[in-house]
Amino acid sequence: MKILIINTGSESKKYAIYEGENKIYSAHFETENGGYVVTETFNLPDQSEQKEKKEITEKIFRKAQAYLLESLVNKKLVNSKEDIGAIGIRIVAPGEYFLQDRIIDKEYLKKAKQALKKVPLHLGPALAEIKVAKKVFAAKKIVGVSDSTFHKSLPAEAKYYAIPINDSRKLGLQKFGYHGISIKSVLFQTEKRLGHLPAKVIICHLGGGASVTAVKDGKSVETSMGFTPLDGLVMATRVGDIDPGAVVYLADKLWLSTRKLEEYFNNKCGLFGLSGKSSDVRDLLKYEKEGDQDSALALKIYANRLKKHIGSAAAVLGGIDLLIFAGTVGERSFVMRGRICEGLQFLGVNLDMIKNNETEGVEAEISSQESRVKVLVMKTDEMEQIAKETISVL
Amino acid sequence: MKILIINTGSESKKYAIYEGENKIYSAHFETENGGYVVTETFNLPDQSEQKEKKEITEKIFRKAQAYLLESLVNKKLVNSKEDIGAIGIRIVAPGEYFLQDRIIDKEYLKKAKQALKKVPLHLGPALAEIKVAKKVFAAKKIVGVSDSTFHKSLPAEAKYYAIPINDSRKLGLQKFGYHGISIKSVLFQTEKRLGHLPAKVIICHLGGGASVTAVKDGKSVETSMGFTPLDGLVMATRVGDIDPGAVVYLADKLWLSTRKLEEYFNNKCGLFGLSGKSSDVRDLLKYEKEGDQDSALALKIYANRLKKHIGSAAAVLGGIDLLIFAGTVGERSFVMRGRICEGLQFLGVNLDMIKNNETEGVEAEISSQESRVKVLVMKTDEMEQIAKETISVL
Repeated sequence: MKILIINTGSESKKYAIYEGENKIYSAHFETENGGYVVTETFNLPDQSEQKEKKEITEKIFRKAQAYLLESLVNKKLVNSKEDIGAIGIRIVAPGEYFLQDRIIDKEYLKKAKQALKKVPLHLGPALAEIKVAKKVFAAKKIVGVSDSTFHKSLPAEAKYYAIPINDSRKLGLQKFGYHGISIKSVLFQTEKRLGHLPAKVIICHLGGGASVTAVKDGKSVETSMGFTPLDGLVMATRVGDIDPGAVVYLADKLWLSTRKLEEYFNNKCGLFGLSGKSSDVRDLLKYEKEGDQDSALALKIYANRLKKHIGSAAAVLGGIDLLIFAGTVGERSFVMRGRICEGLQFLGVNLDMIKNNETEGVEAEISSQESRVKVLVMKTDEMEQIAKETISVL
Repeated sequence: MKILIINTGSESKKYAIYEGENKIYSAHFETENGGYVVTETFNLPDQSEQKEKKEITEKIFRKAQAYLLESLVNKKLVNSKEDIGAIGIRIVAPGEYFLQDRIIDKEYLKKAKQALKKVPLHLGPALAEIKVAKKVFAAKKIVGVSDSTFHKSLPAEAKYYAIPINDSRKLGLQKFGYHGISIKSVLFQTEKRLGHLPAKVIICHLGGGASVTAVKDGKSVETSMGFTPLDGLVMATRVGDIDPGAVVYLADKLWLSTRKLEEYFNNKCGLFGLSGKSSDVRDLLKYEKEGDQDSALALKIYANRLKKHIGSAAAVLGGIDLLIFAGTVGERSFVMRGRICEGLQFLGVNLDMIKNNETEGVEAEISSQESRVKVLVMKTDEMEQIAKETISVL
């Protein structure tokens, strides 16, 4: 059976077709230089791989699923929409109900609609994709693969905010944590690589969203994202940690409705807000070199916040055995990895700067021989992980 | 010249009279068992000390300054209000302007009124006291001693939240940090005790408010409170760290105005909110022993949050040389100190449990002989520090 995997954000959409555990197609729809592009990879029956990148219209971007179905038929990877037996989609939603992968049925959609109010910008695009999928494909089952299941193990002391406990219970307001799919993928690869998983692992998933997770004996015991994916690190456009008093003051001062305020914290903040220029670490490093003060400050705050969360995760774990960098920034930016680890020698973290600086977008061990803590750059494969979990639910 | 020192919160008011650096009188007005009490200490000219505790009415509590003036005259410590030459008062207010101790003049009061909107619950009582002081005493000068001056040294990466940098600049929205007066007092005592100040110091000030501050070479480089004193640790009734997404959701869900929301985060949260029973660590330890789950959870979250902030401060410092506990909980609760330090051995923190358990409300070194990090319990004297700074401004 062929299954379609969907992993979507508001500005980027990833799709893949798996047959069993084999990926036969993937597509990445994204914005580039103010326009839209799609990059497709076809794994043809003759074992050859074809990669195609095209500029597309906004309309095609929005109707990505119809486009990719046509592509698949053209390349004879599928005969018709009937060939897609099931769909798996990444779901970011706060709520006990969503701490589990589930078949998306009427009840699921009802609960999702309620959760939508909590994280409109994260859940909205996924719900839109589900709607489209039902029209474009004839798949009998759609599986919601939760980005929080990995954090189901969070102990009570990590889970609750210090608000009245009855409000937490009544409103279901607690830390859920996200990036769980990516972390599972990374841990799976890491265990394969090392032959075992050390007891105290810290994973920095640094992409557009970013988080630090403390993993003890394979289980999540602390993570920097919270009730929503807004909390913790400085992200591309998300605010991360901020004084609740400042949140209240901003609401007052900017005269923002809660809806607008959420959009502000999600889309106008982070590296983009601090630099006023770009949400992309590569750009900011360039601007910094050119002497731009705000870009330099943005990167400084980014690295400092990460350092703090690594220290905090270490305190929860009682030390670190293994520190992992993943996500686009984690995999590719040796400069930022270097800055983040600078000053963490007291935790036993020592980078081999030559290895670190050579490692860009590939898996590698970048700690020095003497480093008490092993430091790895790992590649995450969220699509594969979603596929695995979709199959396991089916 | 005699000066009056005022340190006031919404539920407790402390006053002292200093003559030079000698304290000749102190009074603590507070609530007890639903009523009001005042404890006065008179240091009489014959060198004897008299301590008196009385139940008082709410009216006297509100008019505490008039009451204490009468007391002072009765004991012949002053002849009349004319004897009080100046007044010093602790000021908690966000703003660049308040990063400095200043004479309270018209401009000051204007700025304070603007700041009042940001922290009504912290600044309100102080402004009320200033008003009363002008009526009750004939002091020519009132000095506002800022609780933030110590954090003036915060580096840019610690100071800014990841909101648009222009909003930070325009609104003056940045981390100011508080408890600075207490920290200065503690560092002064510590330096006296040790003969020097180690390079990397972490101070946990644990009172009704609570904060962790990282001090490098005598200067504040990170602190857990932020723009307001709401951020960071779990406090008696304040919320501390919470996902901004959760703040927005709470505003929506509880239908609270920003004013009410601020009150909620200040007065209904923290240990009190989590336990649903008490904001007092002593009570909660008792309830925990009696089997109360929510009290146990509240203390667990309290200790865990502290551990995280100590780890985070250590990461900023690049290690710890000296860990200090101060404030009522820090000085008195050996149980909580034990729980907080448990699992921090990897940072070099090792308590001597016998010394720790013997230390209640006195200064002591509580680390073991082998501990790489020295751990001290220190007593803070905010009143003396306010007096010093008042004199230095005059």
